[in-house]
Amino acid sequence: MFYYIIKMVKNMNIIDIIEKKKKSDELSYEELQYVVMGYVEGKIPDYQMSALLMAITLKGMSKIEIFNLTDIMIQSGETLDLSGIEGYKVDKHSTGGVGDKTTLAVLPIVASCGVKCAKMSGKGLGFTGGTIDKLESIPGFQTNLEFDQFIDQVNSIGLALMSQTGNLCPADKKIYALRDVTGTTDSIPLIASSIMSKKIASGADKIIIDLKVGRGAFMKTLESARRLARTMIEIGQRYDRDVICLVTNMSQPLGSMVGNQLEVEEAYQLLKNEPVRRDFKEVVMTIATYMVHLGKNISLRDAKKEVETVLKEGKALEKFHQFIEAQHGKLEFDDLPGREIVAPKSGYVTRVEPAKIGELVKELGGGREKTTDQIDYRVGIKLHKKVGEKVKEGEVLLTVYENQKKLEDREYLDCFTIEKHSCIGERLIYGTVGEMI
Amino acid sequence: MFYYIIKMVKNMNIIDIIEKKKKSDELSYEELQYVVMGYVEGKIPDYQMSALLMAITLKGMSKIEIFNLTDIMIQSGETLDLSGIEGYKVDKHSTGGVGDKTTLAVLPIVASCGVKCAKMSGKGLGFTGGTIDKLESIPGFQTNLEFDQFIDQVNSIGLALMSQTGNLCPADKKIYALRDVTGTTDSIPLIASSIMSKKIASGADKIIIDLKVGRGAFMKTLESARRLARTMIEIGQRYDRDVICLVTNMSQPLGSMVGNQLEVEEAYQLLKNEPVRRDFKEVVMTIATYMVHLGKNISLRDAKKEVETVLKEGKALEKFHQFIEAQHGKLEFDDLPGREIVAPKSGYVTRVEPAKIGELVKELGGGREKTTDQIDYRVGIKLHKKVGEKVKEGEVLLTVYENQKKLEDREYLDCFTIEKHSCIGERLIYGTVGEMI
Repeated sequence: MFYYIIKMVKNMNIIDIIEKKKKSDELSYEELQYVVMGYVEGKIPDYQMSALLMAITLKGMSKIEIFNLTDIMIQSGETLDLSGIEGYKVDKHSTGGVGDKTTLAVLPIVASCGVKCAKMSGKGLGFTGGTIDKLESIPGFQTNLEFDQFIDQVNSIGLALMSQTGNLCPADKKIYALRDVTGTTDSIPLIASSIMSKKIASGADKIIIDLKVGRGAFMKTLESARRLARTMIEIGQRYDRDVICLVTNMSQPLGSMVGNQLEVEEAYQLLKNEPVRRDFKEVVMTIATYMVHLGKNISLRDAKKEVETVLKEGKALEKFHQFIEAQHGKLEFDDLPGREIVAPKSGYVTRVEPAKIGELVKELGGGREKTTDQIDYRVGIKLHKKVGEKVKEGEVLLTVYENQKKLEDREYLDCFTIEKHSCIGERLIYGTVGEMI
Repeated sequence: MFYYIIKMVKNMNIIDIIEKKKKSDELSYEELQYVVMGYVEGKIPDYQMSALLMAITLKGMSKIEIFNLTDIMIQSGETLDLSGIEGYKVDKHSTGGVGDKTTLAVLPIVASCGVKCAKMSGKGLGFTGGTIDKLESIPGFQTNLEFDQFIDQVNSIGLALMSQTGNLCPADKKIYALRDVTGTTDSIPLIASSIMSKKIASGADKIIIDLKVGRGAFMKTLESARRLARTMIEIGQRYDRDVICLVTNMSQPLGSMVGNQLEVEEAYQLLKNEPVRRDFKEVVMTIATYMVHLGKNISLRDAKKEVETVLKEGKALEKFHQFIEAQHGKLEFDDLPGREIVAPKSGYVTRVEPAKIGELVKELGGGREKTTDQIDYRVGIKLHKKVGEKVKEGEVLLTVYENQKKLEDREYLDCFTIEKHSCIGERLIYGTVGEMI
């Protein structure tokens, strides 16, 4: 099919296509296909693709172009058939944050409410972590499931999570890697088609997207987050998928813990109904509520009640144990000794830079610079104080868990701003886009 | 010096620089230097450079950035010292056209008026020809002169032309090659700094630029041509070089001949005072007049008179013979047999597409696709009819000189538009920018 079209349009030329986009003209399906598949097949070199990606970033894309690009990326690889699972399949995606262990707590809650969770997840790159890495910090936990095994587990316990296969949207994978190093990551058309092509290829009927906005996220402003949300919802509609975007704040790390094993521990605490940071719990409960609402077709109010009940009654915790056990994990945490770092002065914490915290954890070995890097699961940072909180000189600000690599206190303290006066709090959940009721 | 700066700014990062330009922010000298030299040294890959070039193409550059970029490109290589030549050195540059053999006729005219012409020239690439290739179509003609030999020849006969050395503006060379394949050729800041860095590095005091505008040129509109002209003049001022831009029409090929040897023959005809196409002669005489005006510091009126006189009295022809002989050429033309192609219908010629004509001559073997391609000097096209002229069905429209490769008549005829009614003529010389009187 692709070759047939290529023959039809043998006069297509990448430079003409770049020139067209420079003038803000709309590229046709065939032109986008020529570019994307030509790039995947190595016929179009990186330098031409990056010039086009920059033109797209600066000139934008029409809705039709975004739909077509998404479609071409889906067609570039396999699509998963989840019809072997009874009932609605609800998927959850986060656009990426620091300390974002939401998935770990949300899925057991939702599954224990009776909604099927068949989730593919990726490894982390850069300063944002990946759910796969977090789960792999649990001794023995297996993420490389066979597809049949994955489906069987969802049918038996209502929940499975596996590592994303290489065959879903290979075009997106290659283009994403190039965007990452060419200053073209913040294009709404490119982000929307990248996220949605993967979600649609993974087969879920209903999708909740946790769209992070703020200093530690791709989307820096609420306005751009809303535009991205609307674009993703429209793509979803073309494929008959219900999409709800929850726009949440990422101007400081979520919860207390940043680091793979530490984050699993924090999620576990939540599921055990032990006290955790309010921001983390609020995001988890909200996402879970929307997933149950969508997956069971019940009101948000009823969904919220169910979510609270399964947590309180320990059913979510039980589901988590089942899930970990089904994938051969053992919840035995072997923490590194922590080193406490104290506040150099008294005042109010007015900033905790999420990107800097993420970078430091990566430097400690808890994240990847390149996809081939090995991760040290146990390193990380625990925040004792967050934005808006009072701190006294000498009081503990954070605990760092270092292993091979040690950093100076100054580097950690640089993530914090302590001022005389407190700041105005920012909302944690800005709202939803795409809600149908 | 460069390494010192790099050390000072070790935290510079190409992605940050790309992001800055995306926001239309001004890049500092150090940032531009980091990028340009990093690219020349292979530390910055093509795909990052092309993303930045696209951002520059779409977002522009401030004057300071353009001056700095020009300076960095000059500093990236050697600069020629023409102080061994007495008197003002006047250089001539064309932004590139089809059938543009102007230099071949202009230099002998100007030199015979007593103005020193020390010209470096390049080989052609794509559909526009290079002066070096045209001259090398003359049997025996040598363009690879030693620099001393070049200076001596200018001092003895007032005129020499050599192949551009690889050491002038290597940064421009590498960046130009990338722009050529990434849709970033039409950026005024990039064109201006590319042309002017080479002109300034080649050492002339006074520079006449033949700025082509129209369908067969980089600059499609008069407005963009004027902006480019003003930018180049301002760069010249920073280096104390007088620059005059002559904006000339390139919406059809210049003169009758397109093809290396054919163009030499046409220039030779002009110098012999034989009848040639009016457009070609007018451009030659105007450029020559401005060069003499600048080089001798005399009025345009007096310069025009001198130019007409040396042509009429055969002094320009004599200078041409001296020049060819000095560089070991022999004016022995061995034409291929021509094949005449006739008009398929009667009417007026309303278009002769220069780019298509250029492409066909390249296909015949008269131009290069890649820098390593060999050229067939004798192939080409002679136009019998040009825009605005009446033609009868069956009358000869063009003569084609084919050698190894033959094309169908249809392909040649596709370059022509013949309509019932004639068209409004376009001006040949739109005017000058930078004239001081």
